Formats: sequence, C-alpha cells, structure tokens
Amino acid sequence: MNAIEDLARLIKKLPGMGEKSALRLSYHLLKTDDTYNKALAERIATIKEKIHPCPICASYTEDDICEFCKSETRDKSLLMVVQESQDTVTINQAGIYNGLFHVLGGAINPLNGIGPDKLRIKELLERIDNGSFKEVIIATNPTEEGDTTAIYIKRLLEGKDLTVTRLASGLPIGGDLGYADKTTLLRSIKSRIKI
Amino acid sequence: MNAIEDLARLIKKLPGMGEKSALRLSYHLLKTDDTYNKALAERIATIKEKIHPCPICASYTEDDICEFCKSETRDKSLLMVVQESQDTVTINQAGIYNGLFHVLGGAINPLNGIGPDKLRIKELLERIDNGSFKEVIIATNPTEEGDTTAIYIKRLLEGKDLTVTRLASGLPIGGDLGYADKTTLLRSIKSRIKI
Repeated sequence: MNAIEDLARLIKKLPGMGEKSALRLSYHLLKTDDTYNKALAERIATIKEKIHPCPICASYTEDDICEFCKSETRDKSLLMVVQESQDTVTINQAGIYNGLFHVLGGAINPLNGIGPDKLRIKELLERIDNGSFKEVIIATNPTEEGDTTAIYIKRLLEGKDLTVTRLASGLPIGGDLGYADKTTLLRSIKSRIKI
Repeated sequence: MNAIEDLARLIKKLPGMGEKSALRLSYHLLKTDDTYNKALAERIATIKEKIHPCPICASYTEDDICEFCKSETRDKSLLMVVQESQDTVTINQAGIYNGLFHVLGGAINPLNGIGPDKLRIKELLERIDNGSFKEVIIATNPTEEGDTTAIYIKRLLEGKDLTVTRLASGLPIGGDLGYADKTTLLRSIKSRIKI
C-alpha cells in the first residue's frame, strides 16, 4: 500500500465516503498548498483537546459552560431535547429558537445496544426537576429510533407540570435533522404538536 | 469562531464539501477515537513529502520511477494519455489496460488560463519520438476541455507512424473519468475510435 492508498483508506472511514471519493480527496490533497494540508492536519489532530461537552447540556464547547447555558438572554422556560450536539448548531443557525438545549448523545436503538441508560436521560430529568421549564420540545430525529426515544421521554415526563411537544410536520420521515433546511425547520417548530 | 467551525471551514474547502457536510465531518471527528484523528492528521500533513510525480509519466509515486514506467511486463507499444494522475489508478484498478501512461496534468481550458503550454504535452511528444509506441490512446475526460485537448494532441501527432485513438462509447458526456465504473471503462476501451 502506498501513501495515497493509505491516506484514502483513512478518509474512507469518514461518514459518506466511498472508495472513489476517498481516493479523489487524497489526490486533491496532493495538489493543494501544503500550508492548507498542515493547517487541516493540525485542526484534526487537536480538535478533541480543544472541544468537550458542556457539563450542563452536553453540547460541544471550548468554554467551561456552553454559550447556550451561560446566555442571559435565552428563554429558560423552554428546553429542546436533541440527539446530537450538532443539532443545536443546526437549530441555532436557523435563528428560530431561543430556549435552552439538552443533548442526549444518541437515540434508543436496542439492536445496536443503545438503551436509555446510554443516553443523557437521567441528567435530563434532573435538569427538569431543578429548573423552571414550562415546555420540553423533543427534537429527536424523525426515525424509528428518534420516535422511540421521544415516546420514552414523554412517558417519563408524565405527571410533571410541563407541556411536552415534538417537532412535527416538515421533517421528512427517515431523514436526519442535520440536513434539514431552514424553512423545514421553521415549519416543524411552528407546528410542533403536543404528545 | 470556535474550534469546530474552524475545522469545518477548512474541510469545506475540499471538493464536494458543502457547509453541512463539513460541519457533520467535524462533529464526527469529535466522536472518533483520537488515535484515528492523529493518524489521519499525520497522513494529511506528510502526503506531499512522500509522494511526487514520476519524472517520466507524471503519475504520483513514492519511488524514483513509478510502477508503470518501471514495469517489465507492461506493453510498451501502447501509451494512454490521461488528464490526472488518479485516472491511471482508475484505469489500472479496472484491470483492463496493460500499456503505459502519460499524465497531462489537466486539460486545455482557455477561460481558466490553461493553454497547451501548461500541460505536459512537450514531454508527451518527446516520449513518443524517443519511444517505440504503436498506439496512443487519448483518455482525456469526455468534456469540452477534454475533447479540445484530444483534438489538439491528435493534430500534433499527425504525420507520425502511430495509431491515435480516443476512449469513446460508454463515457457519459460532461462526466468525469474518475467516477466511471469498470463496465463503462471496459466498453469505452474496447470500442475506442480512431480520430
């Protein structure tokens, strides 16, 4: 195996990379300015040192507490529960939500051995019990796992003085929140349904 | 800009990367094993030191002379002219061609300021004059630039004791050789036409 194949082999492990696109990227890196390659390599090598989950909501941050949790202006009566940290970025960039977030770290998936205990659900209940939330918006992906997780959380929250909603129309079934466009997100937040 | 956005900004410069896919890859790198990140970073940082163009055919190699040019078993009467080094890998992996290669380093594209002088055409003519080729297969991409380049080279080779052919049927117009499947490549080599 030569150096290009070796690089392509590693790139191929990234999500969405096939054999040809991995090889194509490797060749591309042979043509780019070496300053770029060195900069990219440095960022990849150090990203896990720079970034860690926020101790409150688990969204990734460089600070002690993330920008959402330490914000003075966000609506502390609204809590949106998402699967992954990047979902907070997607929602935030759309500029249509000003509440707090809670990152589960995935969705319930028994086939892959991911039970509720593997997710940050205990931490969610503690935050709700110690907070002043009036509404919990469950924004898990519109997939079987996301739906299962939403229903599971909804049941745990029954009896509490809370409105529990779920992002609804607009999200294509089987899709992924991370690829939703702004309009779709806006509609799904506006028409969120009580579950 | 935080470290994730900074990483995503660099990833977005790679071909085929949009804003969302760049962000998605960045987050993925936060979840992967750090050994993988370090290995990938090391490969990216050093790829240009390890790999250089073969002095004869310009395909990328780690050796003094590339595997094609130094091969004792390849057919030295056949020369395939391709735009990019990765095209030699595509053709070679398909296992349907056993001649030599010549990498032009692109295609004629006046709008982007790429004239014949920017390509390895002089080197091609020297190789042909000093070699024992019987056939030159022009395998530039089936695009306007690739066609222009093929016709340009064909004219330069007129009067020489050579058959000049061009990959023909099977390659979709406007497509890219690097994404062709084996069957398509096979058909286009078998039915190559004299130009």
